[in-house]
Amino acid sequence: MSTEHFPIEPWCLREPALDLERLARTESLFSVSNGHVGLRGNLDEGDPHVLPGSYLNSVYELRPLPYAEGGYGYPESGQSVINVTNGKLMRLLVDDEPFDVRYGVLRRHERSLDFRAGLLDRQVEWVSPAGQEVQVRSRRLVSLTQRSVVALCYEVEPVGAPARVVVQSELVADEELVQLAKGDPRAAAALSHPLESEEYSAEGTTGHLVHRTKRSGIRIAAAMDHVVSVPDGVTVDLRADAVADWARTSITCRLEPGQRLTIVKLVAYGWSRRRSLPAVRDQVAAALTAAMAAGWDELVAEQRDYLDDFWERADVEVDGDPELQQAVRFGLFHVLQAGARAERRPIAAKGLTGPGYDGHSFWDTETFVLPVLTHTAPAAAADVLRWRHGTLPLAMERAVQLGLRGAAFPWRTINGEECSGYWPAGTAAFHVNADIADALTRYVAATGDVELEREIGVDLLVQTARLWLSLGHRTMSGAFRIDGVTGPDEYSAVADNNVFTNLMAARNLRAAAEVAVRHPDLAALLDVGAEEVAAWRDAAAAMCVPYDDKLRVHPQSEGFTEHAFWDFSRTPAEEYPLMLHHPYFQLYRHQVVKQADLVLAMQLCSDAFTPEQKRRNVDYYEPLTVRDSSLSSATQAVLAAEVGYLSLAYDYAAEAALMDLHDLHHNTAGGLHMASLAGAWTALVAGFGGMRDHAGELSFAPSLPEGLDRLAFRLVRGDRVLSVEIRPSEAVYSLVKGDTPMTIRHHGAEVEVAPGEPARRPLERVPDLQAPHQPLGRAPARRRRS
Amino acid sequence: MSTEHFPIEPWCLREPALDLERLARTESLFSVSNGHVGLRGNLDEGDPHVLPGSYLNSVYELRPLPYAEGGYGYPESGQSVINVTNGKLMRLLVDDEPFDVRYGVLRRHERSLDFRAGLLDRQVEWVSPAGQEVQVRSRRLVSLTQRSVVALCYEVEPVGAPARVVVQSELVADEELVQLAKGDPRAAAALSHPLESEEYSAEGTTGHLVHRTKRSGIRIAAAMDHVVSVPDGVTVDLRADAVADWARTSITCRLEPGQRLTIVKLVAYGWSRRRSLPAVRDQVAAALTAAMAAGWDELVAEQRDYLDDFWERADVEVDGDPELQQAVRFGLFHVLQAGARAERRPIAAKGLTGPGYDGHSFWDTETFVLPVLTHTAPAAAADVLRWRHGTLPLAMERAVQLGLRGAAFPWRTINGEECSGYWPAGTAAFHVNADIADALTRYVAATGDVELEREIGVDLLVQTARLWLSLGHRTMSGAFRIDGVTGPDEYSAVADNNVFTNLMAARNLRAAAEVAVRHPDLAALLDVGAEEVAAWRDAAAAMCVPYDDKLRVHPQSEGFTEHAFWDFSRTPAEEYPLMLHHPYFQLYRHQVVKQADLVLAMQLCSDAFTPEQKRRNVDYYEPLTVRDSSLSSATQAVLAAEVGYLSLAYDYAAEAALMDLHDLHHNTAGGLHMASLAGAWTALVAGFGGMRDHAGELSFAPSLPEGLDRLAFRLVRGDRVLSVEIRPSEAVYSLVKGDTPMTIRHHGAEVEVAPGEPARRPLERVPDLQAPHQPLGRAPARRRRS
Repeated sequence: MSTEHFPIEPWCLREPALDLERLARTESLFSVSNGHVGLRGNLDEGDPHVLPGSYLNSVYELRPLPYAEGGYGYPESGQSVINVTNGKLMRLLVDDEPFDVRYGVLRRHERSLDFRAGLLDRQVEWVSPAGQEVQVRSRRLVSLTQRSVVALCYEVEPVGAPARVVVQSELVADEELVQLAKGDPRAAAALSHPLESEEYSAEGTTGHLVHRTKRSGIRIAAAMDHVVSVPDGVTVDLRADAVADWARTSITCRLEPGQRLTIVKLVAYGWSRRRSLPAVRDQVAAALTAAMAAGWDELVAEQRDYLDDFWERADVEVDGDPELQQAVRFGLFHVLQAGARAERRPIAAKGLTGPGYDGHSFWDTETFVLPVLTHTAPAAAADVLRWRHGTLPLAMERAVQLGLRGAAFPWRTINGEECSGYWPAGTAAFHVNADIADALTRYVAATGDVELEREIGVDLLVQTARLWLSLGHRTMSGAFRIDGVTGPDEYSAVADNNVFTNLMAARNLRAAAEVAVRHPDLAALLDVGAEEVAAWRDAAAAMCVPYDDKLRVHPQSEGFTEHAFWDFSRTPAEEYPLMLHHPYFQLYRHQVVKQADLVLAMQLCSDAFTPEQKRRNVDYYEPLTVRDSSLSSATQAVLAAEVGYLSLAYDYAAEAALMDLHDLHHNTAGGLHMASLAGAWTALVAGFGGMRDHAGELSFAPSLPEGLDRLAFRLVRGDRVLSVEIRPSEAVYSLVKGDTPMTIRHHGAEVEVAPGEPARRPLERVPDLQAPHQPLGRAPARRRRS
Repeated sequence: MSTEHFPIEPWCLREPALDLERLARTESLFSVSNGHVGLRGNLDEGDPHVLPGSYLNSVYELRPLPYAEGGYGYPESGQSVINVTNGKLMRLLVDDEPFDVRYGVLRRHERSLDFRAGLLDRQVEWVSPAGQEVQVRSRRLVSLTQRSVVALCYEVEPVGAPARVVVQSELVADEELVQLAKGDPRAAAALSHPLESEEYSAEGTTGHLVHRTKRSGIRIAAAMDHVVSVPDGVTVDLRADAVADWARTSITCRLEPGQRLTIVKLVAYGWSRRRSLPAVRDQVAAALTAAMAAGWDELVAEQRDYLDDFWERADVEVDGDPELQQAVRFGLFHVLQAGARAERRPIAAKGLTGPGYDGHSFWDTETFVLPVLTHTAPAAAADVLRWRHGTLPLAMERAVQLGLRGAAFPWRTINGEECSGYWPAGTAAFHVNADIADALTRYVAATGDVELEREIGVDLLVQTARLWLSLGHRTMSGAFRIDGVTGPDEYSAVADNNVFTNLMAARNLRAAAEVAVRHPDLAALLDVGAEEVAAWRDAAAAMCVPYDDKLRVHPQSEGFTEHAFWDFSRTPAEEYPLMLHHPYFQLYRHQVVKQADLVLAMQLCSDAFTPEQKRRNVDYYEPLTVRDSSLSSATQAVLAAEVGYLSLAYDYAAEAALMDLHDLHHNTAGGLHMASLAGAWTALVAGFGGMRDHAGELSFAPSLPEGLDRLAFRLVRGDRVLSVEIRPSEAVYSLVKGDTPMTIRHHGAEVEVAPGEPARRPLERVPDLQAPHQPLGRAPARRRRS
């Protein structure tokens, strides 16, 4: 029954037959979400399941963070995303038999997630153990237009013989979970039953539950209503029940073969930490009323319109590799789902698709996800930046606690407070602050959104610049050093002058100086004077960037190239990821790289390296980089493409795109890797498109690998949309929206793209250079060549 | 009632009047121990108390070590010393009133600990609230000659009027304790009631309790017996009771004024992890029988003989500073108490004087305590080394777990397993392995104990040398680097080429090569071949020792001198110790030193530095060193003396010696600082005596600071004892034991000291140089000049 991979289709992910072995993975892959509400692809009837998941962005429970040996400034409490009230449950009884795919005969079980419809569709033909056949179809959506609303359409039809059918449509709170937090029974206890009932009801076709989290004190309400349709002459019996942790609408009828019971279930969610119970209850009731007024068909139509609009400006076309075509759309769809309606809430590393990483947001959001949203759904990017800005007071408190100035944003968080319990790979990774500043700077450059720059940008840039000035210091020779910090590579930590961190800090400092000059009124409110701006500029100019003169490469951090090499020849496949089989101290003291670090610096601070240096650095770091992090392959794709390793870039691009579809890191079960899904876009656009957006201008250096016949993508640029179409022999730039011409660069040369006047530029055929090798056994899968 | 400091007396520590404010401190200071059994100076009657403490060396309970974020190789379980059955309890009832110093009138309360008698003596005159006066005297010893035995002599005499007196002599298990492990309720729970009763009895004058620890499964037995004496005509009523957690002998009589009740209480302890209950019970009964046969007077006489013998070879005389004289003897007495009968058990950082540091042993033992014992009580030093060797199998397992070869000894432990829950200041501090090797090498050089070298030395040196070879690596230029380790200074961590670590590792490698050559038979058993020995020698010769050419000083670790300086001008006194008020990441990235690190390297590897370098390094590190660790002042004394800062050396010597007597770190309550107490000896002998023992030979470079008129000490050297007597104008070396002459060095020149022929050498008056300053507010107290 199991097929290795999913069928290749351009606009949907389809599972032709149920594979219980990979149920946990499909629960993640078939998630539907709008960034506010997220539902894992659990089966409608609840069982079997691995991780039941219904999430509300920023609804978390607190759990203690214990330490064998404590230390000043360690966070004492962490946040964990919780599985909230499950509103997607539809249990079915056929005659006397509960519908369960593990019993009887499953004649057909097909699920598909349509990227243009935004719907999860499931079609089932099942023969009960007693021999009664039924057809079941369910469709499920989380509305992209009505933020709080989940809609389901559930249809049952007996085949061959009449059947008595009972559908129990439910809201269920505090579902039993497998243990999430290994090793600490107290943390597990805090998360296993986080909800306390405050109110419940069921009447007629409606039901509602109100709960509150025990420690974090977040109130959560869920309400449901139903529209039941049957053919004329069929009698429907309705019954409503509710207790503290569940509400149920039971719909009973007797159907002849060919007669169909159709139930539209609408669920609305609401939550608040501060609003009263009646307020939250009413908010949910209002959302439900609006959804009922719209009805299933309108919700479906709105969903399609929303997605048509998105794909119109965001689609990436890949000719010559249909699997990659499917994967990049799958990725874009899920990135959109994670951010579309997040609205001043974070985008977690796993979006709302699973409990992985405790539902935390990391630098992934700003460094990997926002660049994609900035160019495809800029309003969503702006909202995430507003969320960060909303946590600025907490980041400023944290800086004071750490003996620093400005703002120190958390390494991992939901509500803005630091949740990292291991400071060498948490607090010490200060680059997150520069990553935030960079995402903001690029967003403003791409959108021209000066209003957002004034609303949040000046604050963010000034306070992060202040952090860097307090973190670094001048040597007697005048260099500005940043010592004892951790860069992107988590297999090194607490090192001096990490090149990525230092270059990104310099960008941050320069950007702060620029906004202070652009917005003197706001700068004055923050007490930014000429002296401070000069200090930022000077520190940026004097920033220490270590270079190994003998090897003629940049050490990732000072001294890195003098460390011992990891012995890959003695590291068998089963010892990956290395951090699960080797102590940190060993990883840190060796030249072994978990994820692109210096190589990422070469992507994001491209102008700080010569082409020669880039090639040599790639050659140096490729044999050291094991990609135990999902954040690496897209970046390696971009740099491999830039330095001419086109086949290798293609391999990496495919790896990033297929991370979850092929479960390459064996943990898709816990949720999808948003950064890698976004990275698929980046690998294509910045890799083969060669797109860079450093100094506020767009540049391209297209070059296709053998096997790809055409790559086309679009970039939103303020009120314009630029289309880029690349074929082996030429690139065509055109404005598909916008009235004024736009200047870009193509392989260094200025190109003006005017409305109605596509600019064509021939491409030279560049040789596909022989790429350096990767650590033994860690090469990416070779992408089949056409 | 409180006096700031204790009265200055040459041979005892005396508290003339009870000071309840410093009860916790005197509980530690008045501890009596033999290294096997240790009793805190709790009042006989139990109340009031701060930390009741009765310890058996290596009796611990296990507790979970929790992590907010786990990691490969983190220890999951730690060991904590526990308060075992309290055998020192003697409650007194006078008529109807329990004797409690907080009620009635305390006319006199004097305690003294005699360093020559090895006895804690307490004399009390108390008037009960009802007006009855009594005199109470108690004496307490833990026998240095009978390892398992505690003896008490308790005397009561009414004054003025007859009184009915009841003395309840008890064994009490599982006493209520104040919470020890903050922040982790599970750990506290594991330690608050660790004992489970297995057996109990009381009959006549005897009682016994057998318990077992709940998790670690250690069986502990305690038994008591009594000899009761009263004047003729006085009737004594005896009653015996026992339940699971206590056994009690009640002694009742009516005394006329001047009549004295004398109770000698003997207690024997035994424990085992493997032996059966009857075996442990009988072992304790046998020890008690032997002690009863000896009786109080003989135990007291044996104690005196043992200590006379010790002081004969160990005493240090300091003329001109009676407080320092008292302090150095106090320190030597407690160091002896910690190690005298440890016998293949560790010496903990706090000895058996309190629960501080969980009762763990650290590198303190080998680096600070063993050098003193090696020269004053070498048999005790040998036994501690045997304990380390006994844990070699665990250290070899740990090395495998960490991906290393040879042996990786734990940073902190009781039973040999790593208990450190913070690897950057635990596992990464690999220097502990070289410290062990060094202690062994110096012990063998001092004693000529080739038998011990064969028994354990070859094993220890070979396996630690193997560790270093696997920890370090060669660069292309041939240097041997040791990256990513933590040196002695805990305000830096995980740095490359820590000078102390590298130099000590080189010593370790050379010593291993030498023993392999000296004992080829044993080397062959360990598969040590010529290639391996050559590799050790080559690595030692190529050892990387970073040097800052611009500043002309040794950076503590690579890059240290490029870090920012700590801003001491903005660090108020209440922010010390810094680690309680600043995050580790800030400490690690600044030039701020908790404790001598590079400076300790200059003491222990004196021959690796020129005199010029030593002076410049001291000048560089003095202004950076805050001494938040008690392990620093003795080392700073030694180097200050060497480079000519004699007054500063004097200040540091006094600080080391007075660490606990003046409670300089405000934590003497938790137990005494054995390393600092030992350091007082080192500060005098290696500081003003200039004693070094690097290459197996003894050298001296005496020089007294202003204020000291004479310094005399003795050093055991095999079967010889060398006496060194230093006056401002001359040094006299003489053999007080031994038949053959001995060659030493005096300020570089060879001196032969023959039996009966003291060698006198004049001393030049050297100027007391102007010393560098310390961080603001962190200068040691100036020692008053005579």
